[in-house]
Amino acid sequence: ARSWAIIDSTLREGEQFARGNFKTDDKIEIAKALDAFGAEYIELTTPMVSAATAADIRKLASLNLKAKLLTHVRCAMDDVQRAVDTGVDGLDLLFGTSSFLREFSHGKNISQIIESAQTVIGWIKANHPNLELRFSAEDTFRSEEADLMAVYKAVSDLGVHRVGLADTVGVATPRQVYTLVREVRKVIHSECGIEFHGHNDTGCAISNAYEAVEAGATHIDTTILGIGERNGITPLGGFLARMFTLDPQGLIDKYNLDMLPQLDQMIARMVGLSIPWNNYLTGEFAYNHKAGMHLKAIYLNPGAYEAIPPEVFGVGRRIQAASKVTGKHAIA
Amino acid sequence: ARSWAIIDSTLREGEQFARGNFKTDDKIEIAKALDAFGAEYIELTTPMVSAATAADIRKLASLNLKAKLLTHVRCAMDDVQRAVDTGVDGLDLLFGTSSFLREFSHGKNISQIIESAQTVIGWIKANHPNLELRFSAEDTFRSEEADLMAVYKAVSDLGVHRVGLADTVGVATPRQVYTLVREVRKVIHSECGIEFHGHNDTGCAISNAYEAVEAGATHIDTTILGIGERNGITPLGGFLARMFTLDPQGLIDKYNLDMLPQLDQMIARMVGLSIPWNNYLTGEFAYNHKAGMHLKAIYLNPGAYEAIPPEVFGVGRRIQAASKVTGKHAIA
Ligand SMILES: O=C(O)CCC(=O)C(=O)O
Ligand SMILES: O=C(O)CCC(=O)C(=O)O
Ligand SMILES: [Cu+2]
Ligand SMILES: [Cu+2]
Repeated sequence: ARSWAIIDSTLREGEQFARGNFKTDDKIEIAKALDAFGAEYIELTTPMVSAATAADIRKLASLNLKAKLLTHVRCAMDDVQRAVDTGVDGLDLLFGTSSFLREFSHGKNISQIIESAQTVIGWIKANHPNLELRFSAEDTFRSEEADLMAVYKAVSDLGVHRVGLADTVGVATPRQVYTLVREVRKVIHSECGIEFHGHNDTGCAISNAYEAVEAGATHIDTTILGIGERNGITPLGGFLARMFTLDPQGLIDKYNLDMLPQLDQMIARMVGLSIPWNNYLTGEFAYNHKAGMHLKAIYLNPGAYEAIPPEVFGVGRRIQAASKVTGKHAIA
Repeated sequence: ARSWAIIDSTLREGEQFARGNFKTDDKIEIAKALDAFGAEYIELTTPMVSAATAADIRKLASLNLKAKLLTHVRCAMDDVQRAVDTGVDGLDLLFGTSSFLREFSHGKNISQIIESAQTVIGWIKANHPNLELRFSAEDTFRSEEADLMAVYKAVSDLGVHRVGLADTVGVATPRQVYTLVREVRKVIHSECGIEFHGHNDTGCAISNAYEAVEAGATHIDTTILGIGERNGITPLGGFLARMFTLDPQGLIDKYNLDMLPQLDQMIARMVGLSIPWNNYLTGEFAYNHKAGMHLKAIYLNPGAYEAIPPEVFGVGRRIQAASKVTGKHAIA
């Protein structure tokens, strides 16, 4: 099985969710819960937002969690200088590379992007050599492949620990992600990791993360319940459901999977919404069995109609006998 | 762009959803709405469930919709004899081919499955030659490839119009679907279509449907809001969101896309639940923009952070200015 780590971004991408307005205590609760679950990394909003946000980052860093803390900043000197002394373990640098973002966001061309990266990364390497560094090309999947390769090669040469592919508007397709990750793998140093961040606008956020791992990605961005801009990104629970069927023991060894209901409930409470009824694993009906043909087989072996034993993720099953579609094969 | 049709199964798979208990009037409303939307096929529950279900099928057939009506039956003489004179346009035949279902459901081996198919399909071809026929291997993705190829080749030789691949427990991965559809394409007749039905337990139902089309599938099963057994199947709206970014005009020509909110609301009402807040296109926050860097660009060109213009699907956008993460780049 391939080796990969979770970068949970509930405290960054999740803050960009319509209802993601976490108070200091919420942030501490989320970070501790993710740490107890076994998330390898926790990504935090940039300290540029406000002095209060910067203070929260320092407070989270002082918890000395096992999980590494990252803060997410634009690849610009102002932002980075504010971020380096917050006590985090690393910086997730971001620069838009698509024509959309070059034109309508920051106005820079590809050589200017590479120049900025050289200045910023050079300065961090010289002054804060212990920080873990990632450089991500925002809107990767609407960027020109030649531009991307030039940028990724440049930042890998500058010594970043990971490059990031971001499906910012949620348009990437699974085989496209697979192919691009393999191409990126060829132009970066072998010790340089690959991170994937995928939005779910067209329903591929989980698949794309999975195909990224298959192609050699080493880090996957998730949020609890998938919260983020618009309809969000790869959800932690859904991604683990996906990875579980392919390597159950690997997941059991890495994470406290039966904490998932608690994580999902915590975020639902904080954003003031319910866990969606169709949510992976923890949704109200995730393990509801109804058709008569199913009930008979489930009774003999639940694996007949279940990809994942619910108890592994701390949830139960519901056998809905005596319904209209149960028909003559019901067990009752 | 590839040519494909929707088989909407809200009135079959959707009846297997925990809360899918449609009354006769609901069924008529759903069928008419799907027809007005432009769904090419509507799949109905087997008449074996009850005399009332059989009567509902007849009533739906008498509406003379543009959409073709199918009823979903086990590949068994009893079931088929009951189904042929309900007035539908075709039968979706089903037989479990995985070891799980062979052992814990019907107890037949592969040659017995092929024999049953010969009897049943032979009888239909002789007695009801105008019915459109599909044969699907339930639990396709946990079946042996050699078994599948033998079954698909046999039923294609028997003259079915489509073969079906069903990811019954939601374990298939996108590249696996792509590869298998291409293999199946090679063993069946060129005029035989390929249908894909995918559950969403591990978050790949939309991706898998998309990759199936890319590999040559001609028919995709959906339900409104994705309702079905457990957490459901490929949702109509999410699937269309996926296909839209790749061929906008093709979708605009085929479907009345701006009816989607109405379809989603109709089913939410009938099952007594809300549209999930993270739903594709019609969810409360699907077009909520919050981060400051996003707002500035969105103001200049919404395409900077939107894969699909919301108005095409009859929904609006929400610019959430003045939030904590809005920061200094907000437009306000
Ligand atoms: O930093 C990244 O890789 C992702 C930034 C982001 O949220 C996005 O592009 O959607
Ligand atoms: O008939 C089919 O292809 C699908 C049946 C079904 O609902 C399933 O296998 O999940
Ligand atoms: Cu994002
Ligand atoms: Cu199904």
